[in-house]
Amino acid sequence: MRKICVVVASRANYGRVKYLLKAIKNHPDLELQLIIGASTLLERFGNVVDIIKADNFTPLRSIHYVVEGETLVTQAKSTGLGIIELASAFEDLKPDMVVTVADRFETMSTAIASSYLNIPLIHLQGGEISGNIDNRVRHAITKLSDLHFPATNASLKRIIAMGEDPNNVFNFGCPSIDVIKNENLEISNKIMKKYFGVGIETDWEKPFILMLQHPVTTSYGKGFYQINTTLNTLKKFQNIQKIILWPNIDAGSDSVAKGIRKFRELNNSENISYYKNFSPEDFVKILKNASCCVGNSSSFIREGSFLGTPSVIVGDRQRGRERGKNVIECDYNEDEIYKSINKQLDHGIYNSDKLFGKGDAGFKIANKLASVDKFDKW
Amino acid sequence: MRKICVVVASRANYGRVKYLLKAIKNHPDLELQLIIGASTLLERFGNVVDIIKADNFTPLRSIHYVVEGETLVTQAKSTGLGIIELASAFEDLKPDMVVTVADRFETMSTAIASSYLNIPLIHLQGGEISGNIDNRVRHAITKLSDLHFPATNASLKRIIAMGEDPNNVFNFGCPSIDVIKNENLEISNKIMKKYFGVGIETDWEKPFILMLQHPVTTSYGKGFYQINTTLNTLKKFQNIQKIILWPNIDAGSDSVAKGIRKFRELNNSENISYYKNFSPEDFVKILKNASCCVGNSSSFIREGSFLGTPSVIVGDRQRGRERGKNVIECDYNEDEIYKSINKQLDHGIYNSDKLFGKGDAGFKIANKLASVDKFDKW
Amino acid sequence: MRKICVVVASRANYGRVKYLLKAIKNHPDLELQLIIGASTLLERFGNVVDIIKADNFTPLRSIHYVVEGETLVTQAKSTGLGIIELASAFEDLKPDMVVTVADRFETMSTAIASSYLNIPLIHLQGGEISGNIDNRVRHAITKLSDLHFPATNASLKRIIAMGEDPNNVFNFGCPSIDVIKNENLEISNKIMKKYFGVGIETDWEKPFILMLQHPVTTSYGKGFYQINTTLNTLKKFQNIQKIILWPNIDAGSDSVAKGIRKFRELNNSENISYYKNFSPEDFVKILKNASCCVGNSSSFIREGSFLGTPSVIVGDRQRGRERGKNVIECDYNEDEIYKSINKQLDHGIYNSDKLFGKGDAGFKIANKLASVDKFDKW
Amino acid sequence: MRKICVVVASRANYGRVKYLLKAIKNHPDLELQLIIGASTLLERFGNVVDIIKADNFTPLRSIHYVVEGETLVTQAKSTGLGIIELASAFEDLKPDMVVTVADRFETMSTAIASSYLNIPLIHLQGGEISGNIDNRVRHAITKLSDLHFPATNASLKRIIAMGEDPNNVFNFGCPSIDVIKNENLEISNKIMKKYFGVGIETDWEKPFILMLQHPVTTSYGKGFYQINTTLNTLKKFQNIQKIILWPNIDAGSDSVAKGIRKFRELNNSENISYYKNFSPEDFVKILKNASCCVGNSSSFIREGSFLGTPSVIVGDRQRGRERGKNVIECDYNEDEIYKSINKQLDHGIYNSDKLFGKGDAGFKIANKLASVDKFDKW
Repeated sequence: MRKICVVVASRANYGRVKYLLKAIKNHPDLELQLIIGASTLLERFGNVVDIIKADNFTPLRSIHYVVEGETLVTQAKSTGLGIIELASAFEDLKPDMVVTVADRFETMSTAIASSYLNIPLIHLQGGEISGNIDNRVRHAITKLSDLHFPATNASLKRIIAMGEDPNNVFNFGCPSIDVIKNENLEISNKIMKKYFGVGIETDWEKPFILMLQHPVTTSYGKGFYQINTTLNTLKKFQNIQKIILWPNIDAGSDSVAKGIRKFRELNNSENISYYKNFSPEDFVKILKNASCCVGNSSSFIREGSFLGTPSVIVGDRQRGRERGKNVIECDYNEDEIYKSINKQLDHGIYNSDKLFGKGDAGFKIANKLASVDKFDKW
Repeated sequence: MRKICVVVASRANYGRVKYLLKAIKNHPDLELQLIIGASTLLERFGNVVDIIKADNFTPLRSIHYVVEGETLVTQAKSTGLGIIELASAFEDLKPDMVVTVADRFETMSTAIASSYLNIPLIHLQGGEISGNIDNRVRHAITKLSDLHFPATNASLKRIIAMGEDPNNVFNFGCPSIDVIKNENLEISNKIMKKYFGVGIETDWEKPFILMLQHPVTTSYGKGFYQINTTLNTLKKFQNIQKIILWPNIDAGSDSVAKGIRKFRELNNSENISYYKNFSPEDFVKILKNASCCVGNSSSFIREGSFLGTPSVIVGDRQRGRERGKNVIECDYNEDEIYKSINKQLDHGIYNSDKLFGKGDAGFKIANKLASVDKFDKW
Repeated sequence: MRKICVVVASRANYGRVKYLLKAIKNHPDLELQLIIGASTLLERFGNVVDIIKADNFTPLRSIHYVVEGETLVTQAKSTGLGIIELASAFEDLKPDMVVTVADRFETMSTAIASSYLNIPLIHLQGGEISGNIDNRVRHAITKLSDLHFPATNASLKRIIAMGEDPNNVFNFGCPSIDVIKNENLEISNKIMKKYFGVGIETDWEKPFILMLQHPVTTSYGKGFYQINTTLNTLKKFQNIQKIILWPNIDAGSDSVAKGIRKFRELNNSENISYYKNFSPEDFVKILKNASCCVGNSSSFIREGSFLGTPSVIVGDRQRGRERGKNVIECDYNEDEIYKSINKQLDHGIYNSDKLFGKGDAGFKIANKLASVDKFDKW
Repeated sequence: MRKICVVVASRANYGRVKYLLKAIKNHPDLELQLIIGASTLLERFGNVVDIIKADNFTPLRSIHYVVEGETLVTQAKSTGLGIIELASAFEDLKPDMVVTVADRFETMSTAIASSYLNIPLIHLQGGEISGNIDNRVRHAITKLSDLHFPATNASLKRIIAMGEDPNNVFNFGCPSIDVIKNENLEISNKIMKKYFGVGIETDWEKPFILMLQHPVTTSYGKGFYQINTTLNTLKKFQNIQKIILWPNIDAGSDSVAKGIRKFRELNNSENISYYKNFSPEDFVKILKNASCCVGNSSSFIREGSFLGTPSVIVGDRQRGRERGKNVIECDYNEDEIYKSINKQLDHGIYNSDKLFGKGDAGFKIANKLASVDKFDKW
């Protein structure tokens, strides 16, 4: 039995690896060692831990390592604290492989702890491109990794171009698509009534715009202005419901959160609801049923391309990332954003694009982890 | 005045950046912010801090962050603790750029703290190749860096091939060559009498073999065997003095050190002297005047190629690294090592090879740091 | 010049040492080294850093060391991280003495870092009694300290009874009383308009009840229930304004905060305003002008006794603490709380009690720090 | 089953709790959760971990948390790192009680992590007096503890005088005496041949003097001078073997170790052997069979009083500690030390003194842990 340790350290990460977790758990030759940590444990980010447990996964460790503050310096310190804690956990659990996803600071902690402990590191969603420090971190993790499961063909090529051995790079698509493929994505007020938002009560069976906008680390300090621009534009769409989701924990998320809070206090009756968190399945339902998505979440590109949801990506956080036809880009400019949203509302749903896979990535990755040759490190 | 923060965290690092430190300190448009840490502060590694101060550099911070143990897990934890400490120091000193060298865990701490704080990261000696986790770490740091000063042309090409912008990559040679170029490398007993070794008293004016062998992280656990093989071979060269230098702090260095200690207890009269540390200048004198170098130190390749010192590289720690003609490679095999040393002793000194630069790297790098365009990050 | 390092790590701490900071800053033989950290830097706790700077103090270090989560385990980890960070800061600043206040986990970090660095430790507000882990921590810090400035005579006696040398224990009263003594405590809407709360707009010139209730660490998990009991009781006082203040950062403060949030969502029109933070001066104004204080804040006892403000202390967080006549105690029981508040509203303001000093503590403590004999540790 | 977590973090600690560990392990109502850490894992301190495992104890966690350097600042940082690591371990193991011993920085880490996690803390060897920061730390831990097992009656009284509830303080003697009582203390060359020292080969069946001298934290910086004084005096006793044991890890132990190393290099033929570590049982054999003990180890007082071994305590590290008749005190003065050793060699063995217990402490403490009433904290 190969022991596969997966570290899930944010809401977004969980959504992306849920089907891989299932596939590892169900594989006869694999044993799942689940570690959860960082913002998955925080009430402020929706206690993702509860969702994980409700999905019948049993974390072997639940580790707090977020240094509070959401500044650049606390992000660095959280990375350091994460390495210290994860090194102890890995030493104790002695996994045969460690799986890490994407490009956040918690991912970096996992990658470094695993590398220095000489445990083969498996990286999902490498090779992508975005306009942020995430970009550097993602590529640095690629160089620390032993086995790569990029989500698209262009990403696979980029990883190989960076010097990785082509025999260790596999494009099985993105396990986030598995969620879309495998679950019933109909939305209803009945399903969604478990979420308590602030603002108007959402009628999920009527049209709505979804907004999700993260701070951009390399333009730290502008988050407040950026979120304001988007929110002020949304105000103009009086006749359609707007769903505002709070941002990830990141340097600068405090200023985005503050922007949302201030906006809410000054704008009571604008047909807007505010939510903290949804389970990955319910989030995908929202993505599928949104009339338009606005902001800078990579889910608009990744899941959005498969679903065909019309999306407006604001700013450069996703610059350079591969995308389907469902996406229009624009700057932090009220006029541009306004026109782009209108254009997307007029267009309606796009055809599904298989750019990020067919929905069987978790299964294929688990099989590869079970069958791959022994690593020198073992 | 651009504030250039250089983090020096090991004996080897100091030797490599000394002339860059001088050039920054003397440059009218640059202000040097020197941070020293990790093993530079430890008695066991020769209190490099004293040498640094004797060279008239004034560290603004002296930070302990080595978690004792020299196991894989303590190496990971040291990295984490280093990030936490350096993030605080950078926040306080607010440098315009951070300079880091090579590929050790302390280098990784510097790179991550600097990256997350959005401070432009300058990397020296990137793009090289060696057979160790150092290789992965070095390339990961390349992907986190903004400006690259590789030491050779092949390294420059490798960095660009990994996707870095060619406009940000400069080969001015390695600042470690500056030491060789600029200092009088004659050796004498008078100069060297300040070093107290154990074993026979060295006559530095007579022929000697230098041995320096570091543990190899990816074959953690074999250090004791490896050092024994080399030492047992050296024993056979009865008629020439042998200088044994203790290894760097690294996962596994305890087992190498133990091997040396045990060997010493069992072999009293073998014409051997044991030393802990030399200043970078004196180390280069030893390199220049050695009849042969044995072990796996990259200095045999780097400085050795310029000096032409006959060298025997044992094992795969330097596998794939560019080298001059002065190097013979062999495995951990007494017979092979024995023959290689004999061959080198017969050959004598090689012609100087400018592969790693001409000895003006520190000066040129400092000029570039002063003149480079503003970074987006500022 | 003696260098006196004061570590201020929470909103409450700042209020208590503000006049000591002034006295040190103005003393000809003392140099103030101010370090701020932990929740003083957090937006969620009102960015106390801004108030400190507006008062013309210049922090030499601003250190993040709160591990997010507000669970028991994050409180422990924050203490550990604080020690690491403060040890580096003390090493760098080389103070002659370190001053720490009261009994929180940040105080413990300061006490331990200072003790192990052999720097004389000065403790304010030792010897008091309360029903919480604070009690143990406070006494442990007493045993680590070199010089004690308790706030009352009973505290002084308790410190000596614990075995401390009577020559090192001085009761000059509590510097928090200095704020009351030295500032104009009139309240007006003009002064208070800078604070934006949620809920009804407060008319500060009309009667109001103040509520401030912290979680109790030793009954971790009950915070939600406890705050609910108090809030539901307050609801019954329809005709008087209620000011609700968010709790300190502490294990369990999340559940108290959540309780307040939930209550707010369900109770819109209850004549209540919610605030995050006030400057120490304005907080004292509120204390002075409140018709009644309800909750478990030690300020109701400390400043309250000098001001004579009628107060209802709920639960056992302050059990055993010395108090003036202005305080009634009761359990987490709606009926009891209701009757107690009514009784206090009927009684009105009490006579001032000098139990916690006359308002010149900061000045006297600074003088003592300047004149005390040399410590063995120096 | 009550889960009793014992944290063993140094060579000395292990010797002191070994019989308590046995008693817990064998008790039908108790489950032993052993955590080992800090210097027990370091080769430099004799890999105590191997001895622990050879004694059939299975550590559930082995945690590195010593920050290398042995300065004051690294001692503080090690405490901080220990708290972070132990908080994670306690959270994971969920013990019903945590047991900690004595007064070192590792003990403080345990005490703080346990206190903030609301786990009842059991303290052994509280209430003693010594001249060092250990003194402050020991008393601070007393104030954090729930249940106290001091080793003598005077210590019990001191703990109660500090304000602890007499119902929670029990003098069952010191479990270190259990080792003496229960094991065969005859020494022989056969038993001792497993220890490889440096210097002359010890004939354990002939008379010898034992020297063990730790650095004194509050006079940090004088360790080198202090050890030299003692060693130079010992040199004068040419006709009797001298056993020199390396010091504990502590701020300043590097300078003591350096003093020993230097002395050894300059004094080859002085009838001296140098050792790193002995198992607790073998150490007690040495204590019992020594003609005289010299230095500042508390074992000379504690175990020494039961054994009656003539001892010379040098300096003030043990000042104020209760002692039997077997001890003479003197200053760091060659002449004084010389006379004291001679006096003790003339006197020979003393009568056994039961000051530190009868040798059944481990058994009685385990019974009390099993039968004590529920704690409020549970």
